[in-house]
Amino acid sequence: MSKQKLQLGIIGAGRIGRVHAETLAFRLPEAQTVAITDVSQDAVQAVASRCGISRIAESALEIIADPQIEAVLICSPTPTHADLIVEAALAGKHIFCEKPIAHSLGQIDRALAAVEAAGVQLQIGFNRRFDANFARVRKAVAGGEIGVPSLMHIISRDPAPPPLSYIRTSGGIFADMTIHDFDMARFLIGDEVEEIYTAGGVMVDPEIGRAGDLDTALVVLRFRNGVIGTIDNSRRAAYGYDQRVEILGSKGKIATENCYPNQAIVSTGDAVYTDLPLNFFMERYTESFAAELRSFVNAVLEHLPTEVNGIDGRIPVQMALAARKSYDEHRPVRLEEITA
Amino acid sequence: MSKQKLQLGIIGAGRIGRVHAETLAFRLPEAQTVAITDVSQDAVQAVASRCGISRIAESALEIIADPQIEAVLICSPTPTHADLIVEAALAGKHIFCEKPIAHSLGQIDRALAAVEAAGVQLQIGFNRRFDANFARVRKAVAGGEIGVPSLMHIISRDPAPPPLSYIRTSGGIFADMTIHDFDMARFLIGDEVEEIYTAGGVMVDPEIGRAGDLDTALVVLRFRNGVIGTIDNSRRAAYGYDQRVEILGSKGKIATENCYPNQAIVSTGDAVYTDLPLNFFMERYTESFAAELRSFVNAVLEHLPTEVNGIDGRIPVQMALAARKSYDEHRPVRLEEITA
Amino acid sequence: MSKQKLQLGIIGAGRIGRVHAETLAFRLPEAQTVAITDVSQDAVQAVASRCGISRIAESALEIIADPQIEAVLICSPTPTHADLIVEAALAGKHIFCEKPIAHSLGQIDRALAAVEAAGVQLQIGFNRRFDANFARVRKAVAGGEIGVPSLMHIISRDPAPPPLSYIRTSGGIFADMTIHDFDMARFLIGDEVEEIYTAGGVMVDPEIGRAGDLDTALVVLRFRNGVIGTIDNSRRAAYGYDQRVEILGSKGKIATENCYPNQAIVSTGDAVYTDLPLNFFMERYTESFAAELRSFVNAVLEHLPTEVNGIDGRIPVQMALAARKSYDEHRPVRLEEITA
Amino acid sequence: MSKQKLQLGIIGAGRIGRVHAETLAFRLPEAQTVAITDVSQDAVQAVASRCGISRIAESALEIIADPQIEAVLICSPTPTHADLIVEAALAGKHIFCEKPIAHSLGQIDRALAAVEAAGVQLQIGFNRRFDANFARVRKAVAGGEIGVPSLMHIISRDPAPPPLSYIRTSGGIFADMTIHDFDMARFLIGDEVEEIYTAGGVMVDPEIGRAGDLDTALVVLRFRNGVIGTIDNSRRAAYGYDQRVEILGSKGKIATENCYPNQAIVSTGDAVYTDLPLNFFMERYTESFAAELRSFVNAVLEHLPTEVNGIDGRIPVQMALAARKSYDEHRPVRLEEITA
Repeated sequence: MSKQKLQLGIIGAGRIGRVHAETLAFRLPEAQTVAITDVSQDAVQAVASRCGISRIAESALEIIADPQIEAVLICSPTPTHADLIVEAALAGKHIFCEKPIAHSLGQIDRALAAVEAAGVQLQIGFNRRFDANFARVRKAVAGGEIGVPSLMHIISRDPAPPPLSYIRTSGGIFADMTIHDFDMARFLIGDEVEEIYTAGGVMVDPEIGRAGDLDTALVVLRFRNGVIGTIDNSRRAAYGYDQRVEILGSKGKIATENCYPNQAIVSTGDAVYTDLPLNFFMERYTESFAAELRSFVNAVLEHLPTEVNGIDGRIPVQMALAARKSYDEHRPVRLEEITA
Repeated sequence: MSKQKLQLGIIGAGRIGRVHAETLAFRLPEAQTVAITDVSQDAVQAVASRCGISRIAESALEIIADPQIEAVLICSPTPTHADLIVEAALAGKHIFCEKPIAHSLGQIDRALAAVEAAGVQLQIGFNRRFDANFARVRKAVAGGEIGVPSLMHIISRDPAPPPLSYIRTSGGIFADMTIHDFDMARFLIGDEVEEIYTAGGVMVDPEIGRAGDLDTALVVLRFRNGVIGTIDNSRRAAYGYDQRVEILGSKGKIATENCYPNQAIVSTGDAVYTDLPLNFFMERYTESFAAELRSFVNAVLEHLPTEVNGIDGRIPVQMALAARKSYDEHRPVRLEEITA
Repeated sequence: MSKQKLQLGIIGAGRIGRVHAETLAFRLPEAQTVAITDVSQDAVQAVASRCGISRIAESALEIIADPQIEAVLICSPTPTHADLIVEAALAGKHIFCEKPIAHSLGQIDRALAAVEAAGVQLQIGFNRRFDANFARVRKAVAGGEIGVPSLMHIISRDPAPPPLSYIRTSGGIFADMTIHDFDMARFLIGDEVEEIYTAGGVMVDPEIGRAGDLDTALVVLRFRNGVIGTIDNSRRAAYGYDQRVEILGSKGKIATENCYPNQAIVSTGDAVYTDLPLNFFMERYTESFAAELRSFVNAVLEHLPTEVNGIDGRIPVQMALAARKSYDEHRPVRLEEITA
Repeated sequence: MSKQKLQLGIIGAGRIGRVHAETLAFRLPEAQTVAITDVSQDAVQAVASRCGISRIAESALEIIADPQIEAVLICSPTPTHADLIVEAALAGKHIFCEKPIAHSLGQIDRALAAVEAAGVQLQIGFNRRFDANFARVRKAVAGGEIGVPSLMHIISRDPAPPPLSYIRTSGGIFADMTIHDFDMARFLIGDEVEEIYTAGGVMVDPEIGRAGDLDTALVVLRFRNGVIGTIDNSRRAAYGYDQRVEILGSKGKIATENCYPNQAIVSTGDAVYTDLPLNFFMERYTESFAAELRSFVNAVLEHLPTEVNGIDGRIPVQMALAARKSYDEHRPVRLEEITA
């Protein structure tokens, strides 16, 4: 049976690279990781040992050049994504790439052109589409369960801000954090946004402001079909990771709650209480990380279109640029204004 | 004991006049309704009979002129409010007036000046401040339970649009419906809004659009203290009256759920379900209507400031005008731009 | 209109007498309280003054003899109930009597015979039937929404034990506290219990045990139709009044939750929490006290059968005796074993 | 690293054998399945292929005799458990055995004696102890979060009855279904039951009654420490698998809710609803199956006591026999009455 397994190489053994390596090792019998690479020898050794990956490659290019490897997972830092996509496409590898592809539309377009020319498959790591809650909301919208949508709210708050060193190279809150919500907005409504208005500020840590970024944002989206949406982002939710959506339609609404480590409710003389929601994305989105890879492996093995394609990777970057421009210029910005 | 009761006159025996008459008759032993008036004889007879009000006055002015009456409730149509406030103030009556005072700041300022000159007490009918849910949220914010607020969301949706005839004279969605949410926003945060941005549209009934109004709106508020808030308004929530708020602060969040006719949950082979939330404001806000009158009667009897004063009546009208201007001009509008 | 009002006399101005007096004064325009009496002059003066009752009678018999009075509310201590019912029936008065009618079946049967002979109406104060939650459950069962019932659980816990002085004259936990749940069980299932098994103990306060009573009980009911039910009673729920039911049927289940003072949920770094449920019966069952009187007044005015009749007052007492016998004899007891 | 992995053999490739094989293959890198056996060649082939198990053994005894194998999982039918435990113990293998060990205390005692004599480790498959909800409840009880427990309720209902063929060899509802709840009761309270009273009947399918079994049961437990507990069992919950507990203590209560496939709530003009709870144990207890094996593998590798030992396997069988005896004899039965 093993010869039918999809042979993969992993570029990057950081936090998300490790998650994907574990999924491939322990949950996806249809796939096998042939080799892995990372600039940190400690990181790559640990992941290879944990996941039983027999070969550690010297470089991303060694993985891309390996004729045994059919598909690559690009889990390295964002600035390397576009070039690696181009190289992998030229080598005829199918590609799973973490978000975002790049911080500029020019780089993205170059990468997508290479993918198109090579005829390989590309999936972008917008894992939240594969989460049971958001998939249920999409199903309700697509199936008409709540009628024609009119208003949408996405709440997406991190438990605490990342280190300032991370903030400084993150591309800013819209490219780093809101980008998932931009993807979610398009996915849930099934239509494109044409205008964005951003309010926001620095309410969590003044150092984030000094680094040129925001830590709190409220983004208003106007879709072509008239739907109005909001995205609520904060770098700090004292109670943990807060990930919810709500959509109002002509026949009703659908709203999701957070996920909790258990369903116990305690009542004492002080309060009725539960434990806190799952703290961060590794716990909250565990299953969706596995599901997106399962979807990618299946798409490659079955020659199907990937569920999150290159255009799905491009548009949220354009939205992030529009959101920042709206904030800077204090006015609604049309997506078509963002061309580079 | 009856000679210590506050002697009141009611102007207007429509829907809200009737609610207040019933509260005074059946739930506020500290007050007595001496007389009531309305242009509709049927309406006023019904209310007087139901509530044991012995005298039906010919006109509002007859009530205002009655020396036995110490305070008046103005429950007549909005265009009459400002003039009646002026007349009642001149006659030395304390005043409870339904919202809004008027649709223009000029009229409001004239009324408030008369109240100030007469030294009488004025309370505006923003009953939702007296609702147990919103009072609990205010308590959490004021008491520091969630730390320093940063983001607020107000959801305020009617079950179904009112008749077009009502829409046409309502002053528009912002003056008629959002005005309660403008008051709520100021009340909950305890600070003033300095800028408003409005997105919206006609998504429920095209006739509402032809009447020059919107039926769906998303209003973004920026407060002086930096808090960013949204108000989500729709004239149609198929599942009933939807009245919720959520505030994020530096130490946590507080969010309210809707009110239901019972706490039963049914689980069958099809779904786990409950009955619908209370359908509309008469059921949802029953207790707050009684509580606001109790507060007014108490303020008059005890010579205390009213809990919702004239300025509280003025600012939401200014906010409604700013919200409409933002929608019309497709840009954020500062409250100070609204001067008339 | 006042001459059409039902003319009532109230016997007893204690806690529950005051509740009924307030309902009649402020919420039931169809009724008028003509006179009230109590052994405590302070108590009766306070209620009369608060509720505008013009006459304070010297004795219960003065009220019963008053030709103007059409119906009496018996809110005096339990040992007086049976005799007062007999006297009131002889005088042709309709009767609303608090639970229980008496602690022995003999006394109850004597009272019910007098009511029957006089042809007057009798309603027993099992107010919980009129609660929105339990009414919803009954509706689900009666309407087939959950199919044929098989298992039922009633949770009924007080926030804290009453004073020992009360315990000593209460007739014991089954006659004093569980009796409401016995009524609820019959009401919800719509069938009679044929056997009872009781487990229980003293887990809250040893003094309650020394007084010959239990403070914690688990009663198993077997209905004629096969349904098995449990009643969970505790004299202490640290978090407040706990009043829930759950029924499993062939097509599903229905379960009720407690009632809370608000619908706010707070999330902080410590927990996700709400305020405590309504603390005790005066807050929890406010509306049901009003509704039972409304039902009684309506039954009298419209010559309809009362919704909780004499048999409904008798059977729960029989069940209480059976529950105690089961506890004492440590075996299941059939209801038919209880004859006096 | 692979030489440190615990080498296991699996006896039985039915439903639960497959679950364990998958856990070992995909989620427990610390363990390796050396061989598997089953009377059904189709079943064993499918599991071996799916989980990459290289050797299919001819018989259980071949697995037990294999010197490479350090521990065995006994997942074969109940009547084989006791003998296999004896054989495995004699061969010096550590043992994980599905519940129940046997249907008679004599067989169990023989098996436990062999385990004791051999000094091997034994864990019984009461997986629910490892469920996040029940673990949270145990933590609350053990840590004093709700004070001293007094009342406990366990709800445990299957979505639908198993085939009659299964019922007939199951040992009856108490040995087959309630046994998990007996274990749960001991685990949660941390004390032993001394008396059991059973009410029950045939309310789901008369054929189950004709097979000599019940399909609906209400079991009352009295613990040595005075706690009173109930177990509510039904073979049919139309809405899916219903697995909840609630414990009242001197300082409060803790209650768990069911688990759902998502946290979405839909509100329409008909109802406010969610999807049904997870349907059955394979979905509901997925994580606990993995956690119990992780615990077993860890106990063997680290030479620690297992978390569910032989006595934990014996007492629930004794309780099942007492529950049936109570039902048959219609009286409370003390556990010490059950000696064989």
